[in-house]
Amino acid sequence: MQVHLPKIPKTFRKKSKTVSKAGLPPGTLVHIGPKKTEKQLVELIQFDQNELIETDSNNATEILEKVNPEKVNWINIDGLHNIDLIQQLGNHFHLSPLMLEDILNTEQRPKLEEYDGVLFLPMKALNTLSGNQIEYEQISFVLGSNYILSFQEKEGDLFDQLRNRISDPANRVRSKNVDYLFYRLIDTVVDNYYIVMEHIGEQIEDIEEEVYLNPTSRTMQRIQDVKKELIILRKSLYPIREAISSLLRNDYKVILPENRTFYNDVYDHIIQLIDMFETYRDLISNLMDMYMSTISNKMNEIMKVLTIISTIFIPLSFIAGVYGMNFQHMPELNWRYGYFAILGLMLTILGGMLFYFRRKKWL
Amino acid sequence: MQVHLPKIPKTFRKKSKTVSKAGLPPGTLVHIGPKKTEKQLVELIQFDQNELIETDSNNATEILEKVNPEKVNWINIDGLHNIDLIQQLGNHFHLSPLMLEDILNTEQRPKLEEYDGVLFLPMKALNTLSGNQIEYEQISFVLGSNYILSFQEKEGDLFDQLRNRISDPANRVRSKNVDYLFYRLIDTVVDNYYIVMEHIGEQIEDIEEEVYLNPTSRTMQRIQDVKKELIILRKSLYPIREAISSLLRNDYKVILPENRTFYNDVYDHIIQLIDMFETYRDLISNLMDMYMSTISNKMNEIMKVLTIISTIFIPLSFIAGVYGMNFQHMPELNWRYGYFAILGLMLTILGGMLFYFRRKKWL
Amino acid sequence: MQVHLPKIPKTFRKKSKTVSKAGLPPGTLVHIGPKKTEKQLVELIQFDQNELIETDSNNATEILEKVNPEKVNWINIDGLHNIDLIQQLGNHFHLSPLMLEDILNTEQRPKLEEYDGVLFLPMKALNTLSGNQIEYEQISFVLGSNYILSFQEKEGDLFDQLRNRISDPANRVRSKNVDYLFYRLIDTVVDNYYIVMEHIGEQIEDIEEEVYLNPTSRTMQRIQDVKKELIILRKSLYPIREAISSLLRNDYKVILPENRTFYNDVYDHIIQLIDMFETYRDLISNLMDMYMSTISNKMNEIMKVLTIISTIFIPLSFIAGVYGMNFQHMPELNWRYGYFAILGLMLTILGGMLFYFRRKKWL
Amino acid sequence: MQVHLPKIPKTFRKKSKTVSKAGLPPGTLVHIGPKKTEKQLVELIQFDQNELIETDSNNATEILEKVNPEKVNWINIDGLHNIDLIQQLGNHFHLSPLMLEDILNTEQRPKLEEYDGVLFLPMKALNTLSGNQIEYEQISFVLGSNYILSFQEKEGDLFDQLRNRISDPANRVRSKNVDYLFYRLIDTVVDNYYIVMEHIGEQIEDIEEEVYLNPTSRTMQRIQDVKKELIILRKSLYPIREAISSLLRNDYKVILPENRTFYNDVYDHIIQLIDMFETYRDLISNLMDMYMSTISNKMNEIMKVLTIISTIFIPLSFIAGVYGMNFQHMPELNWRYGYFAILGLMLTILGGMLFYFRRKKWL
Amino acid sequence: MQVHLPKIPKTFRKKSKTVSKAGLPPGTLVHIGPKKTEKQLVELIQFDQNELIETDSNNATEILEKVNPEKVNWINIDGLHNIDLIQQLGNHFHLSPLMLEDILNTEQRPKLEEYDGVLFLPMKALNTLSGNQIEYEQISFVLGSNYILSFQEKEGDLFDQLRNRISDPANRVRSKNVDYLFYRLIDTVVDNYYIVMEHIGEQIEDIEEEVYLNPTSRTMQRIQDVKKELIILRKSLYPIREAISSLLRNDYKVILPENRTFYNDVYDHIIQLIDMFETYRDLISNLMDMYMSTISNKMNEIMKVLTIISTIFIPLSFIAGVYGMNFQHMPELNWRYGYFAILGLMLTILGGMLFYFRRKKWL
Ligand SMILES: [Mg+2]
Ligand SMILES: [Mg+2]
Ligand SMILES: [Mg+2]
Ligand SMILES: [Mg+2]
Ligand SMILES: [Mg+2]
Ligand SMILES: [Mg+2]
Ligand SMILES: [Mg+2]
Ligand SMILES: [Mg+2]
Ligand SMILES: [Mg+2]
Ligand SMILES: [Mg+2]
Ligand SMILES: [Mg+2]
Ligand SMILES: [Mg+2]
Ligand SMILES: [Mg+2]
Ligand SMILES: [Mg+2]
Ligand SMILES: [Mg+2]
Ligand SMILES: [Mg+2]
Ligand SMILES: [Mg+2]
Ligand SMILES: [Mg+2]
Ligand SMILES: [Mg+2]
Ligand SMILES: [Mg+2]
Ligand SMILES: [Mg+2]
Ligand SMILES: [Mg+2]
Ligand SMILES: [Mg+2]
Ligand SMILES: [Mg+2]
Ligand SMILES: [Mg+2]
Ligand SMILES: [Mg+2]
Ligand SMILES: [Mg+2]
Ligand SMILES: [Mg+2]
Ligand SMILES: [Mg+2]
Ligand SMILES: [Mg+2]
Ligand SMILES: [Mg+2]
Repeated sequence: MQVHLPKIPKTFRKKSKTVSKAGLPPGTLVHIGPKKTEKQLVELIQFDQNELIETDSNNATEILEKVNPEKVNWINIDGLHNIDLIQQLGNHFHLSPLMLEDILNTEQRPKLEEYDGVLFLPMKALNTLSGNQIEYEQISFVLGSNYILSFQEKEGDLFDQLRNRISDPANRVRSKNVDYLFYRLIDTVVDNYYIVMEHIGEQIEDIEEEVYLNPTSRTMQRIQDVKKELIILRKSLYPIREAISSLLRNDYKVILPENRTFYNDVYDHIIQLIDMFETYRDLISNLMDMYMSTISNKMNEIMKVLTIISTIFIPLSFIAGVYGMNFQHMPELNWRYGYFAILGLMLTILGGMLFYFRRKKWL
Repeated sequence: MQVHLPKIPKTFRKKSKTVSKAGLPPGTLVHIGPKKTEKQLVELIQFDQNELIETDSNNATEILEKVNPEKVNWINIDGLHNIDLIQQLGNHFHLSPLMLEDILNTEQRPKLEEYDGVLFLPMKALNTLSGNQIEYEQISFVLGSNYILSFQEKEGDLFDQLRNRISDPANRVRSKNVDYLFYRLIDTVVDNYYIVMEHIGEQIEDIEEEVYLNPTSRTMQRIQDVKKELIILRKSLYPIREAISSLLRNDYKVILPENRTFYNDVYDHIIQLIDMFETYRDLISNLMDMYMSTISNKMNEIMKVLTIISTIFIPLSFIAGVYGMNFQHMPELNWRYGYFAILGLMLTILGGMLFYFRRKKWL
Repeated sequence: MQVHLPKIPKTFRKKSKTVSKAGLPPGTLVHIGPKKTEKQLVELIQFDQNELIETDSNNATEILEKVNPEKVNWINIDGLHNIDLIQQLGNHFHLSPLMLEDILNTEQRPKLEEYDGVLFLPMKALNTLSGNQIEYEQISFVLGSNYILSFQEKEGDLFDQLRNRISDPANRVRSKNVDYLFYRLIDTVVDNYYIVMEHIGEQIEDIEEEVYLNPTSRTMQRIQDVKKELIILRKSLYPIREAISSLLRNDYKVILPENRTFYNDVYDHIIQLIDMFETYRDLISNLMDMYMSTISNKMNEIMKVLTIISTIFIPLSFIAGVYGMNFQHMPELNWRYGYFAILGLMLTILGGMLFYFRRKKWL
Repeated sequence: MQVHLPKIPKTFRKKSKTVSKAGLPPGTLVHIGPKKTEKQLVELIQFDQNELIETDSNNATEILEKVNPEKVNWINIDGLHNIDLIQQLGNHFHLSPLMLEDILNTEQRPKLEEYDGVLFLPMKALNTLSGNQIEYEQISFVLGSNYILSFQEKEGDLFDQLRNRISDPANRVRSKNVDYLFYRLIDTVVDNYYIVMEHIGEQIEDIEEEVYLNPTSRTMQRIQDVKKELIILRKSLYPIREAISSLLRNDYKVILPENRTFYNDVYDHIIQLIDMFETYRDLISNLMDMYMSTISNKMNEIMKVLTIISTIFIPLSFIAGVYGMNFQHMPELNWRYGYFAILGLMLTILGGMLFYFRRKKWL
Repeated sequence: MQVHLPKIPKTFRKKSKTVSKAGLPPGTLVHIGPKKTEKQLVELIQFDQNELIETDSNNATEILEKVNPEKVNWINIDGLHNIDLIQQLGNHFHLSPLMLEDILNTEQRPKLEEYDGVLFLPMKALNTLSGNQIEYEQISFVLGSNYILSFQEKEGDLFDQLRNRISDPANRVRSKNVDYLFYRLIDTVVDNYYIVMEHIGEQIEDIEEEVYLNPTSRTMQRIQDVKKELIILRKSLYPIREAISSLLRNDYKVILPENRTFYNDVYDHIIQLIDMFETYRDLISNLMDMYMSTISNKMNEIMKVLTIISTIFIPLSFIAGVYGMNFQHMPELNWRYGYFAILGLMLTILGGMLFYFRRKKWL
């Protein structure tokens, strides 16, 4: 059992700028969070059943001119540091300054809000899983009657497969309203949570093996790491449930009744994820108990054996010590077979102690 | 007390394919879970009070042609890997693609959903109990106005006794509507949960005996195993309660008012199961405390006895050591009865220590 | 501190037959639980303000012929193994087969159900308290418009005092409706729960004394026993609260408005019992902490004293060992007062260590 | 660290007579609880804006004759053992026998009940705080349209200041209805709970100091005592919140709308008390953790130092032992400076071990 | 590992005067809490879109004469010890005596109350963060149809930035109603809670580093300190959520519908703060487990190594002791290479033990 002193995880190192906003008026646009991309790109995907137009630009005006209220318009923005650009979009779609403020805050918890018929849903997306690390990315959706805005912290996302399907004129998404696309975006984000869950499940599996076969202080650390991952995951998962549940409870005009069944399905997935979350939380807590008990058993075992060895030899040493005394008159010392008698006595005591310890099941 | 290092349980080994679905459109039919049977069989049990027809086939078309809306039609499907067959059934009964998707997902949590008057209830059934192992099987029920579909992961189920009763023309099930058969199916599944409960109850009993009489590190493991069984059981039990409770709260057209009392009875059974579950959870947690305390008491007892032995002989050895010193002028060494005086002193000290330890109740 | 290995409690030994019912149709009458009496007796107490008739029989027909709808009819049945008799009563009063099924199940949890205006209330009664043992008996009440049926597992009950009062024509029960008798029966059962509570309270008191004065491993066991009693009690207590609360919330025709105030009083008693339950649960959990801490303190104290003794003599023994070496040239050995100097040195070291340990408050 | 074995607290010693009531009819008047006063006094305070009459008597008839429905009548009864007197009051004001029964039960939990427009509110009052001891007294209020009855276990109460104010004709209480006096009585009782809270707060402060500076086993006991005080306090506090909250939720005729704001204020105080309660509960639980960790750290520290001493001398003793062997041919023994070489070796080993332990930060 | 005995925190030292109010009539104005400022200042900020008037005075009459119902009037009071002044304000604005009483109580928990259309909101503001210390200040807001009163414990507050904005005629606050200013005040207070959160987050980060790299008994103390900070923070945070949530649920006349969206935003911030609070609570509890396990691992490691050293030398010492015995007939002693043989034997045993311990992974 070695005590590994690992690298300190840096979870709390990335200081947020939340504090600096205290005292600012509402709707003051400040980007909160690290700058994760240099460029800021705007991408328009505009379609109806017949036609699909895709435009990329770093000029919002160019994009906004192309918006066509007769079609489905999905505008995706990568990078949150260009506040003017975001302000420009906000002005064009008449978005509330409070909504814009939250879009720029990458620590905004998931929620569902309606501002004058426009739905606002900030979420945490799980982008990639390089090595053992889970990367969260803030992604905010805005759903109007004929457009969706999606704001991401940086380039690259989970929606490439979805973009492919949109480019297929026969795909259902092409014949449906903008709220169906909204569902598909949410569903893609939610589906990716299963990856984290899977990953945590595998870690728990590994830790279980380690606890049973070779628990070390590193095991304890892995248990704590999983617990921490779960604590952080919980911050995203439960608010998403609330958000989707409020979407189902209320009658928002931008969500067509015919598509509610899809949102029901997303909700079911989130409930399932929360079930998994709670199962993992209980399992890891069991593993913690098991680890503690195993470590303690092993240590007790070692100390017991060591102590038994000492306990056996200390009385024998005492006897040797007695006959090492230098008294002039010690009759036994002169006996012919005194030495062998004492050796015999020692063996007898040794045997007696071993027998006693074994009978007591201490050995 | 031996530290047994047991085989690692494989609970998490069966990787689900859930992940691979991320990004797929809703209603994409993918079988999630291990393939548990080779063949895929369809069985039709069709009856009214006068007549009973049973047909087995691996050809869905043959079965679907025989469906008679004037009678009760129970179609049971064993095996979920033949997606075309399931799609064919879905088309025939106009089932939602989202429902079909969930039928194929063997990790779907229990829930009750209505799609256009059709009830959908996926559950976990407890099939058999070979040795100590509980085997869960995903089973999904679909209730229409005159038919029930039941989808199972593999052949063999809990319903043989029920099939016998259906073959008896005098049996109540023959004179009642399809929703009564639905109740009988659910009731059979729920009743079988008592077997797991009984099994867990017996394990707790055994563990209690072990904790009181001979706690070893294996006991800890058994406690953890039961806790884990309970964690997994909880994932099935609580959602079933929710499902049945929602069935009772809502007025579904396919459930006749006259049969609600039966669903009430099933609900009562689930509440009872949850009561048992909670009692077992508390009892096993008590056993855990008891185990920890007993192990710790035993170890303390051992260490105390061992330490007392050392403590007694170390001072005596010191005295022997003193008279083993080789100083030229040590008056005691020349005394006639010096040796016996010292032996006497040692005995006195021994007695004194034993008396002291006993008076302190350390022995 | 002795490790007592006690007799194993047999709580889980009495296997229920619940399992065997899996797959049976609803309303199948099977007696679940041990057979606690040989005979099965039926007792009719029939009264109005003027007249009282008491009849005992083991023939249900004889009793049922005497039932008079103009009067209050209380039929008490002792013993649940004669299924025909219970079926006969069920037929006479048109009771639901599901209700009869639950009456025969001695593991049925308390609940309140209405079947066509008839109230059904199964409960756990506390019969007697022989020695330290609490005995639960399943008792089911059925309240119709002019009759009460009470089903007991075996002869002998808590209602003898109530029977005496009924025999007094001036007693209020004689002038009131059958629902007042129903209240009196429930109230008697609930009042007897205070006996268990009192008993548990006394045990906690005793354990508290033991924890403070002489904690042994037996104390831990007593703590666990009380926790287990509370776990089992909880299974009866909370569902009774639910049952009475549902009785108060709903407007059952068989409960006259003028008598609701009595049911309110019973409800208040149950809330009080639950308060006591929760207080005891917290107190026993505190005692557990206290026990753990006391035991650990005592053991630490012992180990510390023992280790201090060793620690004092090991360095002294070393010095003796040094002068027990047989080198030819060891100047100290030839000194005139070398021996006494060394003895003095040893005493100085001894004193120094004692002084140090005391200053450090280790002694 | 000394293990103090304290006097056993007597919390559970005062056996209630609750049990003896099992089987009695409802409304049977039995005084439950110890008899805390010999005399039983009745006191009438009758006033309107113009006039104040105070009458003391031990004759209820005398008091009841003076009751004037045109004025505010506050009748206070000290002592609950004179059942006839209480029955007489009950008859005069047409009180429910169930209410009278609860008045006599000093273990009745706080609640609010209405019987025919009369409000009934039993509470626990905190009388005095002699030394460290909190004394609870059962006090029951009955509010009719023009009278308040207050029943106390014994003489002496918290209301002397209130009586003074009533005697001042200019005081608001003189110009207001009886429900305002009711509020003032409740408010006085609730305000006195702050005294217990303050007391517990001070104890926690003291314990915190003890835990940080000089934790002994007595500290553990003080922690447990505070936890127990909190458990008992909780039994009074939470039900009072329920009672006042139900008073606010319902529209009782005897509470004038204009005075509701006062009851709101009392409610706010109770919420504040519960906030304090929960804070104290968390703080004491933190102190428990801190205590456990500090004690364990101290013990570990001691054991480590002691073990290090042994560990240093045991190898040195071994070397001495080697050269204490009596072999004829041991070259080192004849070396001129063998003895000093060995002493040097021993010193080197000693230094090496000290260096190693220090580098490992064990010393 | 050193046991630091730190200065005792003084959290509980500041005795409140809450107790002294027991028995006083409602609305008695007593300042509860320490006197934090000598002067008591009144400040009027009065504005509409065209004009801004700021007046400071310690004479309430002077201020009250200037109040203009056509404009927004914000009166800020620093210091709560001048009861006459507060009474004067209360009289002028017809405030309830109960409200005034709560304003003076610096231990009043946050809540939202309405008295005749006037909203009352006491809160805890976080003023400054000198060093590591969080300073709470009680601040109470009163919102009428055209005025806000803010009562603070002492001079200096968080609103200077807000005052600057008010002085800018183009700022939105100048063109809006008094309820918008109310929102801005609340928002400023709430925003400052992020500072505490940030601070706690950093402490957790530091502690995490300490736990991983160098856990000492000081670490335990820091963990406890953070837990205590969280306990105290919780007392402010949760009631503020309740207060704002009740503001959103009810339709208060003084809150214009157009401004509700701002209150929604504040509510969202509080939810976010509570999320952070719960995350930190879980993280610190994980760190506690980690600390406990690390400390225990380290101590076990030390004790194991020390015990292994003893265990190795005690048997070797025994052998030396045997050949140190003074028997006349010990053949080995006379052997030519007896000494070297025994040294060899000792080395063999040493090697054997090292090999055994290493194979067992104890070393
Ligand atoms: Mg971190
Ligand atoms: Mg702000
Ligand atoms: Mg904001
Ligand atoms: Mg991105
Ligand atoms: Mg999905
Ligand atoms: Mg689905
Ligand atoms: Mg596993
Ligand atoms: Mg999908
Ligand atoms: Mg899906
Ligand atoms: Mg199957
Ligand atoms: Mg059943
Ligand atoms: Mg049933
Ligand atoms: Mg048992
Ligand atoms: Mg059944
Ligand atoms: Mg009986
Ligand atoms: Mg009762
Ligand atoms: Mg030792
Ligand atoms: Mg006690
Ligand atoms: Mg009674
Ligand atoms: Mg009663
Ligand atoms: Mg009562
Ligand atoms: Mg009194
Ligand atoms: Mg008050
Ligand atoms: Mg107040
Ligand atoms: Mg400390
Ligand atoms: Mg404090
Ligand atoms: Mg007051
Ligand atoms: Mg201030
Ligand atoms: Mg804000
Ligand atoms: Mg916001
Ligand atoms: Mg130890």
